Amino acid sequence: MPAALSPSPPAAGERASRLLERCRTLVRPALAEAVARLHPWVGEMAAYSLGWCEPGGAPVSTPAGGKGLRQALAVLGAEAAGAPRSAGVTAAVAVELVHTFSLLHDDIMDGDPTRRGRPTVWKAYGTGPAVLAGDALFALAVETLATTPGTPGTPGTPRTDIPSAVRHLSTALNDLVRGQADDLLFENRPWTGPEAVGPDEYRAMAEHKTGALLGCATSLAAVLAGAPRETVAALDRAGRHLGVAFQVVDDVLGIWGDPAVTGKPVHADLLRGKKTFPVLAALGTPAARPLARLLDSADPLGAADARRAAALIEAAGGRGAALAEARRHLAVVDACLAGLPAAARTTDDLRALLAFLVRREM
Amino acid sequence: MPAALSPSPPAAGERASRLLERCRTLVRPALAEAVARLHPWVGEMAAYSLGWCEPGGAPVSTPAGGKGLRQALAVLGAEAAGAPRSAGVTAAVAVELVHTFSLLHDDIMDGDPTRRGRPTVWKAYGTGPAVLAGDALFALAVETLATTPGTPGTPGTPRTDIPSAVRHLSTALNDLVRGQADDLLFENRPWTGPEAVGPDEYRAMAEHKTGALLGCATSLAAVLAGAPRETVAALDRAGRHLGVAFQVVDDVLGIWGDPAVTGKPVHADLLRGKKTFPVLAALGTPAARPLARLLDSADPLGAADARRAAALIEAAGGRGAALAEARRHLAVVDACLAGLPAAARTTDDLRALLAFLVRREM
Repeated sequence: MPAALSPSPPAAGERASRLLERCRTLVRPALAEAVARLHPWVGEMAAYSLGWCEPGGAPVSTPAGGKGLRQALAVLGAEAAGAPRSAGVTAAVAVELVHTFSLLHDDIMDGDPTRRGRPTVWKAYGTGPAVLAGDALFALAVETLATTPGTPGTPGTPRTDIPSAVRHLSTALNDLVRGQADDLLFENRPWTGPEAVGPDEYRAMAEHKTGALLGCATSLAAVLAGAPRETVAALDRAGRHLGVAFQVVDDVLGIWGDPAVTGKPVHADLLRGKKTFPVLAALGTPAARPLARLLDSADPLGAADARRAAALIEAAGGRGAALAEARRHLAVVDACLAGLPAAARTTDDLRALLAFLVRREM
Repeated sequence: MPAALSPSPPAAGERASRLLERCRTLVRPALAEAVARLHPWVGEMAAYSLGWCEPGGAPVSTPAGGKGLRQALAVLGAEAAGAPRSAGVTAAVAVELVHTFSLLHDDIMDGDPTRRGRPTVWKAYGTGPAVLAGDALFALAVETLATTPGTPGTPGTPRTDIPSAVRHLSTALNDLVRGQADDLLFENRPWTGPEAVGPDEYRAMAEHKTGALLGCATSLAAVLAGAPRETVAALDRAGRHLGVAFQVVDDVLGIWGDPAVTGKPVHADLLRGKKTFPVLAALGTPAARPLARLLDSADPLGAADARRAAALIEAAGGRGAALAEARRHLAVVDACLAGLPAAARTTDDLRALLAFLVRREM
């Protein structure tokens, strides 16, 4: 664990866990109802990737899903915007389905055989079925949003702005694809010279790949409920900067994290030539010459080279620069949320969750 | 060519070609504008799969795209419903993008190396990039529909019902995935016995896999323009039955078609154990005993077995039954269109196109 950030007190961890648990409990019935509308075979793959069942459909003995960060952001974003709880749940289901779809397809693109300690869907069911299940989750997310109850003009139901919400989600989806495309293309770009990936290109990629969906999660209920434009923009911006912070921290963990905790092989990103922030930051310093020589000399790197590269990146200040970068984005997140015109309590929940989550990862 | 259906006169062919050409010309600028919004690399894959360029982005010397049936259905469906031309173009772009997405992903699922005489996108660019390009086209289709100009309440622009249009498209997408899932699962089902695939299961699969998007194409502009429910239902039903007819004819061509014309290897469906209509129909006849023995005895079939199977299917009446099935669905298409409350001229165009296209395929 880097000592650069003070660890959160235990009470903050308990509060964050309670918040995540509360949001998962609130969203689960609607999410399960949506998944149940899928073709049974496709629905099984969806349930497997959500950690609800084993391959074949048998219930899991211990829950194997994610923390549910995006659904929590949607629920707490709704509260912060003063949107109805139902809008928060609809937004949560839509973004959770999109997130699951993107994991399914990203694991195919990256050739990752495991996720959260279990075989990925393409490993367990085959590439073709995993492509299909991702498509089905994508379509289901759009349908969920487009069938939100409470269309304008229906008496007794809250006003919902479905066209704006669908536009908001499709903007995030376009950004997500754009970021994934850049991330894949970056792998074939050189480390040095005029074709090298710069820090600003990295930031744009991370905002698209990771930030767009977090921004959409945090702001989608506000869009659905017709909240003021400034509220939507602040929530979206908060989520996007959170995403960049997350991606940078993920890069740090990809080099110096404990494989037992991260679930990734040691130095996997270095071995694959991924253009991660600590490396790009280290290459921008005067001490980077030996690192540049090493990276340019071997493609792909071997295990011993990757170990040496990690030490050179740290010596050149790449790790410290990455943590400073993450802190800068978290400060923007804080500023966005501080400016929201909502009850302090509800914004507090959101801020507590975000601050804790990123700190814990660091 | 089966003699069961009288060939269309040359004039009908010219009229259909003119109609397709007119619709492609009308839609092309908006479609190109949409594709230009994609990430450049993803946009190149999209343009390649639309037949506009070679791998690498160089323009094609001879156009390599499809006929543009779906975009023509959208434009002529708009005219038949009395919807504005702009709604027809928006619907055409959305369904063409969805169709291209589904071809990209289906070619991965089916492992098909060529389409229209060129390498498929996954063969030319890799599986991961082809998955990503399909996702991008899907998101672009949703965005296209959600950003249709002319929101309710904007003076001077036609009324558009975006939520209903997005719901209509997502229903078609869900059906498409459902049909593709069943088609994949059918390959592993036995030819005979209680687990065998029945003709009604086949019809549902074909309606979902092929008919849903044709129905959506034909009716989407009507939905966007807020046409009466009966008009939408008739256009959607016409497209869905057209899809079943198409699928059945495609099955016939997959067994008896000329590989030089169909672009598929001879007997490919038989070799893969695909549950096609001529085989299912033949297995339902008393003369089917030797066919059933042959199909049950070898899995997968060899080339000589496939030749023998094709002869047995024909002798048992499977080919004739399939053509009769296609004609029944075309009669429903005709009845749906005849009942439309529109100017005879515009419905005539749509009917002329459909009748000619299916007949030409037969």
